[in-house]
Amino acid sequence: MTEPLRLGIAGLGTVGAGVVKIIRQKAALLEARGGRPITISAVCARNRVKDRGVPLDSYDWEDDPVALAQRDDVDVFVELVGGSDGPAKAATEAALRAGKDVVSANKALLAHHGQALAELAEASGSVLRFEAAVAGGIPVVKALTEGLAGNDIERVMGVMNGTCNYILTRMESAGLTYDQAFAEADGLGYLEADPNLDVGGIDAGHKLSLLAAIAFGTQVNFDAVELEGIGCVSIEDIRQAADMGYKVKLLGVCQMTGRGLEQRMSPCLVPATSPLGQLEGGTNMVVIEGDQVGQIVLRGAGAGEGPTASAVLGDVLDIARGTRVSTFGQPSANLSKAKPAKTATPAPYYLRLVLLDKPGALAKVAAVLGEAGVSINRMRQRSHDQNTAPVLIVTHKTTRAALDNALAAMVGTGVVEGEPVALRIEQV
Amino acid sequence: MTEPLRLGIAGLGTVGAGVVKIIRQKAALLEARGGRPITISAVCARNRVKDRGVPLDSYDWEDDPVALAQRDDVDVFVELVGGSDGPAKAATEAALRAGKDVVSANKALLAHHGQALAELAEASGSVLRFEAAVAGGIPVVKALTEGLAGNDIERVMGVMNGTCNYILTRMESAGLTYDQAFAEADGLGYLEADPNLDVGGIDAGHKLSLLAAIAFGTQVNFDAVELEGIGCVSIEDIRQAADMGYKVKLLGVCQMTGRGLEQRMSPCLVPATSPLGQLEGGTNMVVIEGDQVGQIVLRGAGAGEGPTASAVLGDVLDIARGTRVSTFGQPSANLSKAKPAKTATPAPYYLRLVLLDKPGALAKVAAVLGEAGVSINRMRQRSHDQNTAPVLIVTHKTTRAALDNALAAMVGTGVVEGEPVALRIEQV
Repeated sequence: MTEPLRLGIAGLGTVGAGVVKIIRQKAALLEARGGRPITISAVCARNRVKDRGVPLDSYDWEDDPVALAQRDDVDVFVELVGGSDGPAKAATEAALRAGKDVVSANKALLAHHGQALAELAEASGSVLRFEAAVAGGIPVVKALTEGLAGNDIERVMGVMNGTCNYILTRMESAGLTYDQAFAEADGLGYLEADPNLDVGGIDAGHKLSLLAAIAFGTQVNFDAVELEGIGCVSIEDIRQAADMGYKVKLLGVCQMTGRGLEQRMSPCLVPATSPLGQLEGGTNMVVIEGDQVGQIVLRGAGAGEGPTASAVLGDVLDIARGTRVSTFGQPSANLSKAKPAKTATPAPYYLRLVLLDKPGALAKVAAVLGEAGVSINRMRQRSHDQNTAPVLIVTHKTTRAALDNALAAMVGTGVVEGEPVALRIEQV
Repeated sequence: MTEPLRLGIAGLGTVGAGVVKIIRQKAALLEARGGRPITISAVCARNRVKDRGVPLDSYDWEDDPVALAQRDDVDVFVELVGGSDGPAKAATEAALRAGKDVVSANKALLAHHGQALAELAEASGSVLRFEAAVAGGIPVVKALTEGLAGNDIERVMGVMNGTCNYILTRMESAGLTYDQAFAEADGLGYLEADPNLDVGGIDAGHKLSLLAAIAFGTQVNFDAVELEGIGCVSIEDIRQAADMGYKVKLLGVCQMTGRGLEQRMSPCLVPATSPLGQLEGGTNMVVIEGDQVGQIVLRGAGAGEGPTASAVLGDVLDIARGTRVSTFGQPSANLSKAKPAKTATPAPYYLRLVLLDKPGALAKVAAVLGEAGVSINRMRQRSHDQNTAPVLIVTHKTTRAALDNALAAMVGTGVVEGEPVALRIEQV
């Protein structure tokens, strides 16, 4: 196999330009490791004249990614366009139908259409790889699909949106409000054009749904991911959590339970001393728990030119070497339609509420918790601030349903101001 | 490919029995992920009658691992015998010569004979994989060989001997002396029959030499690893380091420099807040720094039945899927004979010395450091203890040669009691 592996690269943003640079600069290294030269036949992007800091003259130009995907001189279609539908989907499908292998960084596309694309790839004997779609440079898709394939996976957790972790870290370290930290991240260009993709947990939820499919042998089902963004997290919660030895993270968790497949992306408290708790700034982390291997932690840059291009190149080199792994680690016909778990695995919760200064207020709150079957592990009432008193409660393990009953009843007592805040404490 | 992949397993200790158990218990999962059934044709160990907690009657028994390796009904020889020579080497060579693929957990064998074995594997079209030989269940060989193959690797660091990390952690957390912590680890069965393999850094050095070969495309050269065990680390150093914000770890570091390939396994100080510094107990960690991906951190159990068996199964499933990767990530003829770096990359050092109570003693120490070109970043003299005073110094970045000159001169001044302790502060 000394024939070159010929790429067609669609999308020449930061990552696409990075991939081109690496292929130009590291030709000898890539050939040594891949066993054959890696070349680029053609590229495609919306704007032909833009300077991307890398010479493109030696590659053919296509205006249409579908045309690029079908070229005879393209062995591997590299999809860096993005978006769950439109040109990215059309071109990926065209490439697979034409028997090309596909390397994609497109989490939205895979999360929404992964099963259909995996079936299409198999039908034409192609491989479809997407390491760059999950947690940037961390080789987590490979670890889960290949390295840990001898395990029944018990749980996968991840902090997989660097922007959210940056905002939460800045709220704690600089004492910023959510709005201030959000504005700072925006000013640094960290936010997607639609910020809700980041702070609403959608982007991280896409990634989680892909890991869940591999981990549990299920058809990817992003719609079943329970999503909660970080907009509800206040600086007060971050401070109180820190004071009790916790950090607040936008944490993705998936696990297979007797009640079905649980996929959650929500702000959670994790112990400050755990690897997840120690993660700061824009770094990503994925924690994989297998029945044999125990807990494996993977940490690295979750975005950016170099890290994402590194992941793309890893997939390209696998294809160069002849490695052919099913999209989600096993034939798509094996992947089951998992019933989504309607309720989350019981956990302790952190509650923050504001008591009105009425006689017996605290007793009423404790009573409604007890009546709902939620028992209290720690409670702390702070000194009165005029006519109200902030109260912090850490519950013992409880179901979310019991907790929601208790919170509704609590509001009904009339001794609580506004809505109580409830954040899950994930046992890591 | 629905033909079963047939294993011959040599060595039925904890890991071997674990591999047999998984293959029996997870047949459907392994077949789904590997694309074909994984079966065991025959096994081999020294003691046939020992109860290993798993039924072996359905497998043929071989007394001789070489005979096992050559059986017609064995596709993959799984080498869990151990030892750098003797039966493990003979059987691995026999298997490769017979065109079998080999999965090995044997770090000593690979560290001493890796290049010759890689050449042998290539000559017969076999693959030789060894994920289980490095850092137990952490899929680090795969990450480095495949996932990060698009990077020029700049440095690899690792805490890869759980026993040493356990001893160092216990010294700190329980205030034990080295001898006490060593005895505790021994009582728990954590130490190899020859404890020097652990505490002398040899075992971890084997692993480091394998990662270096993959990272830098060089012929594995264990003999060039600069080894220093943890026996020199005192509880006093651990306490002083902690007080200055550092932890002491048996840290492996390899990097390619203008002076040649640097491979070191020695007790080092690392910042307490870094991932390496936060590692406690028997857990392993490998940090990989690539020019594109930045820093990737991998953490998990470095030993034990489940984690090591998980790594073995990962390699077996790769072979079942038809993945064929060169032993060290590229053809063995590409691997260069790197010149070993004679001196380590400059770094700051931690020094602890005991001053005799003589006038101008501290000035003399400072003078010899200055004369050798070693500049002082922080210095602390503690209150006198009878006629001597402990002094701690953190230097600015210096070469080891300059430091050694300074230390020799320091002893020559006659104001220092005994030998000063010098520990490298690795910049992580």
